[in-house]
Amino acid sequence: MTDTALARLSVNQVTVRQLSLPELVGACERSGVGRVGLWREPVQAYGVAETAALVRDAGLTVTTLCRGGFLTATDPGARAAALADNRRAVDEAAVLGTDTLVLVSGGLPPGARDLRAARERIADALTELAPYAGEHGVRLAIEPLHPMYAADRCVVSTLTQALDLAERFPAHQVGVTVDTYHVWWDDRAPAQIARAGAAGRLHAFQLADWTTPLPEGVLNGRGQLGDGAIDLREWRHHVEEAGYTGPIEVELFNEALWARDGREVLTETAERFLTHVMR
Amino acid sequence: MTDTALARLSVNQVTVRQLSLPELVGACERSGVGRVGLWREPVQAYGVAETAALVRDAGLTVTTLCRGGFLTATDPGARAAALADNRRAVDEAAVLGTDTLVLVSGGLPPGARDLRAARERIADALTELAPYAGEHGVRLAIEPLHPMYAADRCVVSTLTQALDLAERFPAHQVGVTVDTYHVWWDDRAPAQIARAGAAGRLHAFQLADWTTPLPEGVLNGRGQLGDGAIDLREWRHHVEEAGYTGPIEVELFNEALWARDGREVLTETAERFLTHVMR
Repeated sequence: MTDTALARLSVNQVTVRQLSLPELVGACERSGVGRVGLWREPVQAYGVAETAALVRDAGLTVTTLCRGGFLTATDPGARAAALADNRRAVDEAAVLGTDTLVLVSGGLPPGARDLRAARERIADALTELAPYAGEHGVRLAIEPLHPMYAADRCVVSTLTQALDLAERFPAHQVGVTVDTYHVWWDDRAPAQIARAGAAGRLHAFQLADWTTPLPEGVLNGRGQLGDGAIDLREWRHHVEEAGYTGPIEVELFNEALWARDGREVLTETAERFLTHVMR
Repeated sequence: MTDTALARLSVNQVTVRQLSLPELVGACERSGVGRVGLWREPVQAYGVAETAALVRDAGLTVTTLCRGGFLTATDPGARAAALADNRRAVDEAAVLGTDTLVLVSGGLPPGARDLRAARERIADALTELAPYAGEHGVRLAIEPLHPMYAADRCVVSTLTQALDLAERFPAHQVGVTVDTYHVWWDDRAPAQIARAGAAGRLHAFQLADWTTPLPEGVLNGRGQLGDGAIDLREWRHHVEEAGYTGPIEVELFNEALWARDGREVLTETAERFLTHVMR
């Protein structure tokens, strides 16, 4: 049971960002974790092909690459640069052998106040990116971020909005990421998870718990599983009822976890996953 | 035009909480502000009847009393204490001559993870409070708070949820407060404002702007009008299209504003109101 349950777990690299890529691979082997989500910056620093070889040789599966997006610029030069960078992200995902690129859509440009127009610019950018991703066997997974990030990070604040965007494109090109940290407050999210599942657009499922008080900037206070207000088991049931059988990725931005020994955090995360999510 | 426009403004006491009640009254007279929203704690400290006399003698109108609520306790003793405290808040509102008591519903009890059950306990408490408020000529105005407060402050996160609760009771007993800071990210809020207006449940309209980065604890970073990402004028249009012609209350929790001379902040707030909301 435990081995089967643990097989569902993917540890996102940022959860233990104090570990180098070889250290992460070693810690996963020791903890029995067979899947990882990766981030572009450390992968680029280590080398994309080198990372792909490292994880492949260790028998690890890459569940997602984080992240593309930031598609809300109005300036033509900035828009073109964002599109080019997202194409590179698709290329990197393909090299790493993951079929899922997580998208954080981007916030309001400086001085702008029109959320609807910004959301429409994302759709416009996806018109160019979605076919490119599809040709490379990569699915773009729009991640709605908590509404507290609407101004400066992601104007897509709900699963409803993310699916409204995704459904303009084929499901094998564009779907959504469900992260408990971002959607747990939303009483409509369970129905939207069902909508995503029925349409084959539930491309990634991530976990973090909600702890308070939130830190300044509200970026790095995502709680270790079981420490907060979210009924993580219930959210697992929601995605499973929607037909999702894929990896469950734990993605924690947490200064306190980063200050600890990364291997210890990874082991703890696997234990918490079994206790608070799978049991 | 300016005088008419300024007549719409109500300054919530917390915006200039560095001012004593007599100082607040004097500053309003100097700035041409004729309406104020009050908070229970400073009013109780000054005396409820004394505050009522002070503002009445100055010709000021009290638009709201902040606040009742915190109705999510599971412990019977805590629940009874909350109900008693809310009855006192109704009494205080009546003495102050305002017909609107703003409700912040409360967060999850310690260790709880069931938002739906907590919301249902609010409805249960309102069954006792709403008739009491109605008998005293006071309307309870459920304020949805931004989803970032769902765990520790208010499990009612959207206007939709607030109206779903309010509509179990007569409109003259229970309605909603619309605060731009809490709803600006929500693409469904304009339609919900129309719903509230059509039902006669739009009991209060408050303004604050959204500025980033958010401070630790995310309580005291509400932006001065015009400093942030919210199109305040558009939200005024939304409530006016819903038939709302009442006061527009500026309620800012902002450490930087509190560190300044309160009279200067009040004058600035009136100017910002004319420039960024009414013009």
